[in-house]
Amino acid sequence: MSSQIEVNSRHYRIPAAPTIVVCVDGCEQEYINQAILAGQAPFLAQLAGSGTVLTGDCVLPSFTNPNNLSIVTGAPPSVHGICGNFFFDPETGNEVLMNDPKYLRAPTILAEMARAGQRVAVVTAKDKLRALLGHGLQGICFSAEKADQLDVEVHGVTGMTERVGMPVPSVYSAELSEFVFAAGLSLLRRERPDLMYLSTTDYVQHKHAPGTPEANAFYAMMDRYFAQYHDVGAVLAITADHGMNAKTDSAGRPRIVFLQDRLDARFGDESTRVILPITDPYVVHHGALGSYATVYLRELDRHDEVSAFLAGIAGVEAVLTRATACERFELPPDRIGDLVVLGERLTVLGSASDQHDLSGLTMPLRSHGGVSEQKVPLLFNRKLSGLDDTRRLRNFDAFDLALNHLD
Amino acid sequence: MSSQIEVNSRHYRIPAAPTIVVCVDGCEQEYINQAILAGQAPFLAQLAGSGTVLTGDCVLPSFTNPNNLSIVTGAPPSVHGICGNFFFDPETGNEVLMNDPKYLRAPTILAEMARAGQRVAVVTAKDKLRALLGHGLQGICFSAEKADQLDVEVHGVTGMTERVGMPVPSVYSAELSEFVFAAGLSLLRRERPDLMYLSTTDYVQHKHAPGTPEANAFYAMMDRYFAQYHDVGAVLAITADHGMNAKTDSAGRPRIVFLQDRLDARFGDESTRVILPITDPYVVHHGALGSYATVYLRELDRHDEVSAFLAGIAGVEAVLTRATACERFELPPDRIGDLVVLGERLTVLGSASDQHDLSGLTMPLRSHGGVSEQKVPLLFNRKLSGLDDTRRLRNFDAFDLALNHLD
Repeated sequence: MSSQIEVNSRHYRIPAAPTIVVCVDGCEQEYINQAILAGQAPFLAQLAGSGTVLTGDCVLPSFTNPNNLSIVTGAPPSVHGICGNFFFDPETGNEVLMNDPKYLRAPTILAEMARAGQRVAVVTAKDKLRALLGHGLQGICFSAEKADQLDVEVHGVTGMTERVGMPVPSVYSAELSEFVFAAGLSLLRRERPDLMYLSTTDYVQHKHAPGTPEANAFYAMMDRYFAQYHDVGAVLAITADHGMNAKTDSAGRPRIVFLQDRLDARFGDESTRVILPITDPYVVHHGALGSYATVYLRELDRHDEVSAFLAGIAGVEAVLTRATACERFELPPDRIGDLVVLGERLTVLGSASDQHDLSGLTMPLRSHGGVSEQKVPLLFNRKLSGLDDTRRLRNFDAFDLALNHLD
Repeated sequence: MSSQIEVNSRHYRIPAAPTIVVCVDGCEQEYINQAILAGQAPFLAQLAGSGTVLTGDCVLPSFTNPNNLSIVTGAPPSVHGICGNFFFDPETGNEVLMNDPKYLRAPTILAEMARAGQRVAVVTAKDKLRALLGHGLQGICFSAEKADQLDVEVHGVTGMTERVGMPVPSVYSAELSEFVFAAGLSLLRRERPDLMYLSTTDYVQHKHAPGTPEANAFYAMMDRYFAQYHDVGAVLAITADHGMNAKTDSAGRPRIVFLQDRLDARFGDESTRVILPITDPYVVHHGALGSYATVYLRELDRHDEVSAFLAGIAGVEAVLTRATACERFELPPDRIGDLVVLGERLTVLGSASDQHDLSGLTMPLRSHGGVSEQKVPLLFNRKLSGLDDTRRLRNFDAFDLALNHLD
């Protein structure tokens, strides 16, 4: 058996010890810092001394699916193709969901490790990611959301609700993520996967700011599981798909730019089409509002005019052409619009106001999608070595760092 | 008596009711939002309904003195000249403190209102601002820091520690700001100033994140005073000099780019001079570390080379020429360097590492200075009218809004 594999032009060593990569959805670094300050994360608190604490950049758009796929492929969206939850096909006029693995253009490190004979397990909170993360994978792969519907032929394991001792939690709950960690611990003890990938949901982070009791309790829960993984002897790498920021004013009201309304009023109905790739079947907690949008134009010769108009709107941080966005953010040009629009840190971008159901926003809006949510933690329970100081670290370096740079 | 005055080419109506403008130092909007969510700011909570809640932009650098002077002059630093706590005079080679009013290039609304016959009072937390805010003012003007050293000839009032019933608090305390509000309430009841300006210190915000118990307690204290001002019948306008952000990684360690060290290593000692205009005699709680720096070059022909070098450093958000910075941020060209450097949201800029005493940083660094701290609240206890929707609101519109736009 070879001592390393190659995936998407990068090399990864075969794990020397059980290795767990955790993607904590929406983990703005301040959540960890504040939980430590509150004395609720003793395991995370000592990582800066006994392990390694780094900061990295996630991929843009700072959404869940593009970043989870980047982490498990070790590559940006220009390579793996998943640049949002859906894209617009101008030829058919359809908005196409990208949950189906047929849209994935690259193999995952997980599938290749399994092909190399390693035992691999994946547990994700929401089922929307399961098919993508498990593409081509011979191993264990299931979601907490559907953990009571496991088929050993499909998911590689069954009986997880009994093993974990928890019923399947609501898809909108902190417990959905806790189920992921509890299942991971159970797998670690019984199946002992060589490589495991755990991915949570940002339900808590969309609702609660860093340092609040609810956020601290969530991080305290994770801290207890991380300590147990460590005690079992696992190599642990913790990163995030994206950060999280308040998107409100001081009264907690959302600051929203409804791009489709603004464009329709200025250029006429159907002259442009705003796509918000954060939209997915689970939008209750953020109303499909993030700080990233892409715009398709009917008349390409109005490109500069539309771009200048958008750039002049208060709350818009930047407007990029497709070419510039693809270069700067390593995006697949065939799956983004003619323009990419970024919202400022405290602003989200909507399409038309009547397309957003904000009735589920029971707490002041917190969201992501922009450059302001690009900084994420890269934490390890071991010292790393051989790192170049000038290297720009990415969240999708998590497997490289955990497998190739252990001290 | 005329019904309005003109100051720095803007008109202000004579107050129709006692009017109080409060500058809450370092008031990132999220502090208010989280205090409201925690149920600790009932007065602020109802302003969105019974009053007015807006968001504005402060001036860059997002530091205390430039913004306090902008608020009281209704003008940017290009007009009033105060663009930091000090500037570098290349002719003498001296770093010049700008606390002295001789550096102030514009009259204040406060002084002009007093000249028009209005009773005016100013209370500031730290004494460093007193002389600038009180320049040319016939009225009451003192700091909480030196409230036990009042001379009626100089400060317009005396005996404030007795009236407030508090000893003079430490300059590094939440109580220093509480003294400002208590003194303001006492003045409001006895001297009944027509116009009052209250300015706090950001000691709490530099230490505690929004939503933490200490921050919520501080905003609860302010909320109680605001409610009392309102009950007395005052018009109340609340804004901030700047926001506040964590400048750390997930372990709470500061993320610092030491610009002078980097420049010396690359271009040689004394080829450049980094000035951090946040530096003042009170640096314990932030170690003179903010997200804004200005750089003077010995050899101007290396301008582009130095600029490109700085722009390539991780954590640097932007490098602007003097001309661009002066245009974009309305700064006085004779008081900034050849280059202006902005740090990213989670990064501060230092000079040389041995020039910063970080021993006073007992809590993870939170600071300001950059574009990431530009959004500030603009809150009023009355409905406003006659506002143009497309107007870019600034914190230095606070007097204009409170005096000219009451419903």
